[in-house]
Amino acid sequence: VHATLELLALLLVGFELCMKLRWLGFHTFIRHKRTMVKTCVLLLQFVEAIVVLIRQTSHMRVTRALRPIFLVDCRYCGAVRRNLRQIFQSLPSFIDILLLLLFFMVIFAILGFCLFSTNTADPYFSSLENSLVSLFVLLTTANFPDVMMPAYSKNRWSCVFFIVYLSIELYFIMNLLLAVVFDTFNDVEKMKFKSLLLHKRSAIDHAFQLLVSRQRPMGVSLKQFDGLMRFYRPRMSARGRFLTFKALNTSGAPMLSLQDFYKFYEVIGLKWKPRRSREHWFDDLPHTAFLIFKGIHLVVKSKAFQYAMYVVVAINGVWILVETFKMNSGYSWSEFVPLSYIVFLTIYGVEVLLKIAGLGPLAYFSSGWNLFDLSVTVFAFLGLIALAFNMEPFYFIVVLRPFQLLRLFKIKQRYRNVLDTMFELFPRMASLGLTLIIFYYSFAIVGMEFFADVVYPNCCNTSTVADSYRQINKTYGNKTVLEEGYYYLNNFNNILSSFVTLFELTVVNNWYITMEGVTSMTSHWSRLYFMTFYIVTMVVMTIIVAFILDAFVFRMNYSRKNRDPVDKDENGIVFEVEVMRDEAVATLELYKQTSPTPPSLSSLTAVLQAMDKSGHTSCVYLGRRSRTKSDLSMKMYEEEIQEWYAEYSRECLPQGDENLNLDQNSPVTDPSPFQEHQPNSQCEHHSIN
Amino acid sequence: VHATLELLALLLVGFELCMKLRWLGFHTFIRHKRTMVKTCVLLLQFVEAIVVLIRQTSHMRVTRALRPIFLVDCRYCGAVRRNLRQIFQSLPSFIDILLLLLFFMVIFAILGFCLFSTNTADPYFSSLENSLVSLFVLLTTANFPDVMMPAYSKNRWSCVFFIVYLSIELYFIMNLLLAVVFDTFNDVEKMKFKSLLLHKRSAIDHAFQLLVSRQRPMGVSLKQFDGLMRFYRPRMSARGRFLTFKALNTSGAPMLSLQDFYKFYEVIGLKWKPRRSREHWFDDLPHTAFLIFKGIHLVVKSKAFQYAMYVVVAINGVWILVETFKMNSGYSWSEFVPLSYIVFLTIYGVEVLLKIAGLGPLAYFSSGWNLFDLSVTVFAFLGLIALAFNMEPFYFIVVLRPFQLLRLFKIKQRYRNVLDTMFELFPRMASLGLTLIIFYYSFAIVGMEFFADVVYPNCCNTSTVADSYRQINKTYGNKTVLEEGYYYLNNFNNILSSFVTLFELTVVNNWYITMEGVTSMTSHWSRLYFMTFYIVTMVVMTIIVAFILDAFVFRMNYSRKNRDPVDKDENGIVFEVEVMRDEAVATLELYKQTSPTPPSLSSLTAVLQAMDKSGHTSCVYLGRRSRTKSDLSMKMYEEEIQEWYAEYSRECLPQGDENLNLDQNSPVTDPSPFQEHQPNSQCEHHSIN
Repeated sequence: VHATLELLALLLVGFELCMKLRWLGFHTFIRHKRTMVKTCVLLLQFVEAIVVLIRQTSHMRVTRALRPIFLVDCRYCGAVRRNLRQIFQSLPSFIDILLLLLFFMVIFAILGFCLFSTNTADPYFSSLENSLVSLFVLLTTANFPDVMMPAYSKNRWSCVFFIVYLSIELYFIMNLLLAVVFDTFNDVEKMKFKSLLLHKRSAIDHAFQLLVSRQRPMGVSLKQFDGLMRFYRPRMSARGRFLTFKALNTSGAPMLSLQDFYKFYEVIGLKWKPRRSREHWFDDLPHTAFLIFKGIHLVVKSKAFQYAMYVVVAINGVWILVETFKMNSGYSWSEFVPLSYIVFLTIYGVEVLLKIAGLGPLAYFSSGWNLFDLSVTVFAFLGLIALAFNMEPFYFIVVLRPFQLLRLFKIKQRYRNVLDTMFELFPRMASLGLTLIIFYYSFAIVGMEFFADVVYPNCCNTSTVADSYRQINKTYGNKTVLEEGYYYLNNFNNILSSFVTLFELTVVNNWYITMEGVTSMTSHWSRLYFMTFYIVTMVVMTIIVAFILDAFVFRMNYSRKNRDPVDKDENGIVFEVEVMRDEAVATLELYKQTSPTPPSLSSLTAVLQAMDKSGHTSCVYLGRRSRTKSDLSMKMYEEEIQEWYAEYSRECLPQGDENLNLDQNSPVTDPSPFQEHQPNSQCEHHSIN
Repeated sequence: VHATLELLALLLVGFELCMKLRWLGFHTFIRHKRTMVKTCVLLLQFVEAIVVLIRQTSHMRVTRALRPIFLVDCRYCGAVRRNLRQIFQSLPSFIDILLLLLFFMVIFAILGFCLFSTNTADPYFSSLENSLVSLFVLLTTANFPDVMMPAYSKNRWSCVFFIVYLSIELYFIMNLLLAVVFDTFNDVEKMKFKSLLLHKRSAIDHAFQLLVSRQRPMGVSLKQFDGLMRFYRPRMSARGRFLTFKALNTSGAPMLSLQDFYKFYEVIGLKWKPRRSREHWFDDLPHTAFLIFKGIHLVVKSKAFQYAMYVVVAINGVWILVETFKMNSGYSWSEFVPLSYIVFLTIYGVEVLLKIAGLGPLAYFSSGWNLFDLSVTVFAFLGLIALAFNMEPFYFIVVLRPFQLLRLFKIKQRYRNVLDTMFELFPRMASLGLTLIIFYYSFAIVGMEFFADVVYPNCCNTSTVADSYRQINKTYGNKTVLEEGYYYLNNFNNILSSFVTLFELTVVNNWYITMEGVTSMTSHWSRLYFMTFYIVTMVVMTIIVAFILDAFVFRMNYSRKNRDPVDKDENGIVFEVEVMRDEAVATLELYKQTSPTPPSLSSLTAVLQAMDKSGHTSCVYLGRRSRTKSDLSMKMYEEEIQEWYAEYSRECLPQGDENLNLDQNSPVTDPSPFQEHQPNSQCEHHSIN
């Protein structure tokens, strides 16, 4: 049954692939690497499923480890694919340094074998294989003082061998590895940004050439721009299209010039809103209420209030610390609710209410820090309820209270920087974590196929790590104590245990105990699995370190270059457009002429109505969007970007100008999403795949 | 006696300090931080030595740990001082992140205590103190799966606590720490370069204003330049001074303009040599010998020869590997000399001789790689002799043979880059190592005072790590086996053992065993020592990583920017100057007029004699110096340097121009070495201390 189900699922994937083949044509299909890999894996699994069906017995099914490939190829795993690409891109330089690392390891293994194999009390260097394994584990420092001890106790100077080995391998080459990956990462990021930028520029050039009509070769009129936007952003309202045009049109001329048009990608994501005339949310309330809220607003905004809250949080922190310190070891803290808990929770609750009242719900919820405060307070409140009703499973909520202390870090600029970076990095970190989990899954499947139910209490008695797997009752005098090694818990019996075991292998401390345990119960080829896993996680971890380094250094450099911290203008990118009444009327007329279907114009007529109501002849609209890394990069590489543009126009524009007239006559072909990525002119080698 | 000796030594240091006080004056003395620290330490040690003399008994003498301060303040420890400064400069940002780290640690300690203290089988969270220590050790991953196991065996979901803790602390904040230090390091390096550059520029401006005479305000003549050089570089020969002037004087005018003069620091370190007309060292030999050497030269230079050697080295490597693999475990390899050893050694010997003959000794020894080859071959030869005469203590030389394999890495460009970076970094790494050793010394002294003879075999039975200190004879059936824990070897009994112990603590794996062992035999305040040591080494190690990252990334960026790898032009900076005969004669005349003492002119007359001998009317001299990081930085920051200069001249030059005439009349005062570092004008705030 199981195999039949799998066969069905595979058939579904196969059907999807066939559809793609039809859609793309055979030639493109063959050349698209990712799809090819997918096809091969599919065929392999297909054959295997049929074999299982025929033989009617299950066997080692390592190919299941390849399943994540289907998952990665879906629409929502774009970030994971990007991470994988980054990993593959830095792989060549990584492998180079890895070879150097392994080379030194082999040399030192030979050396160590020659020096220490005469010592029969030294199990670590008894054969060349042991010697190699010991030094591999030593690279992770997991067996460090132990591997040295037998030799050290014989001859004190043998420590020189280990110190030299660790200095070269761990402190030099491993750091070099990080440097090389960091450098590659940095370079790839910049090149990606460059190619994206030039790709956009060439797209704008092409679009401009297609849009300008023969009668007016100097610019794009609102009518043509509107036509473009209706294809590019079908869901954008007529008001949005008009305002976008106004935002591009800085010179005030009726036409958009090419220079104006170059800002297309900057303004395209803007969300438009009329500028609010009122300062606070309570301005429209009756006078008494206004005064009350105004007072609350002033209190909440005052420095004194903020610092008073910091003091309360600090006192709360010290209180919790002292309280916990005074508790007995066996104390079950669900028995009573300390008074201090209720007092502090009340203070926090009042603070939240005051802030919401003073700032208005909208302003309050737009700040990440306020959301953080609120959620901690709400959790603490839920914890209190859980305590009151003695709901055991929720007790952990109560102990989350100390996180309130995190607010103290808002005081200092550097911490704000660090924590903001932390929040900014979070989506990217999550996708990196997902990538890691996909690797975990593959390794977990392989581990479960080979090592399921291999280790158990009191196993591995022939290995050097037998102690860690022991579970015996020892009698000391008159009492019996269970001595547990616990390591039998690190097994591959099911997928969750495998994940935990793999996480322990990732942390690398004492990983050799798991390795030796499994090895002693299977064959010594099992070590290959663990060593491969170590190297794979090393790659991913190095990428993570490089990523954090890159993000943080970029941010610091940015704020140093622009002399203002990034979070000062946390509103993101803001464009301001003033709409005159007669302009709006003219646009409405124009729209009515061009499009016979009126419903899409409701947003624009609303603008006119609002103007009529307020009695102003003009209305200012603000377009906002959040700042992306691309915006920061634009400022960072300002000078280089000018060079790139110059280089680009030298290479490509003359040819473009010649083709100007030809292009206008050629029909607008709609390229398929895959052909878009194929370079179709010598200047589009900047395309990113 | 011991204390009397120490008192004498201290008196000596005190005398030196008094001399300095006289020399600098009281005011400067007080303001110079390093000297003040030294004085305080001196006074402290002085008082202590007297106390010891009076009481006639020794006591805890922790102040000995401060002794390295005297060492650091000597002339040869400039690099160490620079490192210490760098460490202190990145300390504020480091401490900020450290606080964040400790904050999360405290929160998780409270959380862990609340969650796991109900489990009596869990010794790691039994009290808040244990909980904190466990999480501190967990930060170093040294106790990782063990600390989780008791909780994990009770409830599988408790692993979430540890995974979250490690993800936040180890994988995020620790990397952030590296990022912050790296960023600070990077910034400090650049600022140092900038201030040094502007300092030099202002020095040149001042010198130029002092040198130009009132009659000829446009430039510096050879006579005046010569006078400057005699003060600046008293040991430079007359020829060197003349050639330096010629190198600066690119325009060919009789005077040096300010623009010419700006290159002063670039040409000042050049070593001048006449350009050799002959291509090979053997050109002057008789014809037959010439032909033979020419043949050897061609052979040695050929690609085929090089690749043949690579093949030989590779075969040798495989041979050694196979040979070692086939050896028995108990094999004592000093008994016979394998034939292959002699064969390969002969090949390497012949190669070295051929290369020396073909390239000439000078060219041969100027390449680092050749020196490496030679030393490995010579060592192997010495090893052979040691084997032949059965000199046991030298046997380790033989096993160095595999290092010959390192030559294979010359083939690929990236490895050459990496290995060259390695060699370039070596001096800096050595000074960082020295800095680390100074920290080691201080901690070793403190450790020896408090923990000497504290651990011994079978001690620490009350602690959780008793097993590691056990040394008992166990009887398995009919044979007795010595079970050794070996950890009693990691003690503070003498300075060498202390250093090895501290290195083990630096590697951090299993460091808690040493900590717990010592703690169980002393008090639990001992943990403070170990934790402080961990944090100190963390700082130094982070600096080392940041340094390697910075150096490598800088090098890669440089070669990327200049499109040619750095090592292509490994000759360093080369200046070429052509000297005409009449010019030389005129200069000689000029020198004879100005300086009445003729012996310093011998180098210049030698030039004339050489010209007469060869019959040429001109002679070309090459000035060489090795490329420094400053040269690379000059190219790297080319654009920014122009900005800095512009900024500098905006701020400072107008004032300088006004003072031009005043400066010329003011007498040249010789500033004391300390005053040089004091800013004496608003524009010299760029001075580095």
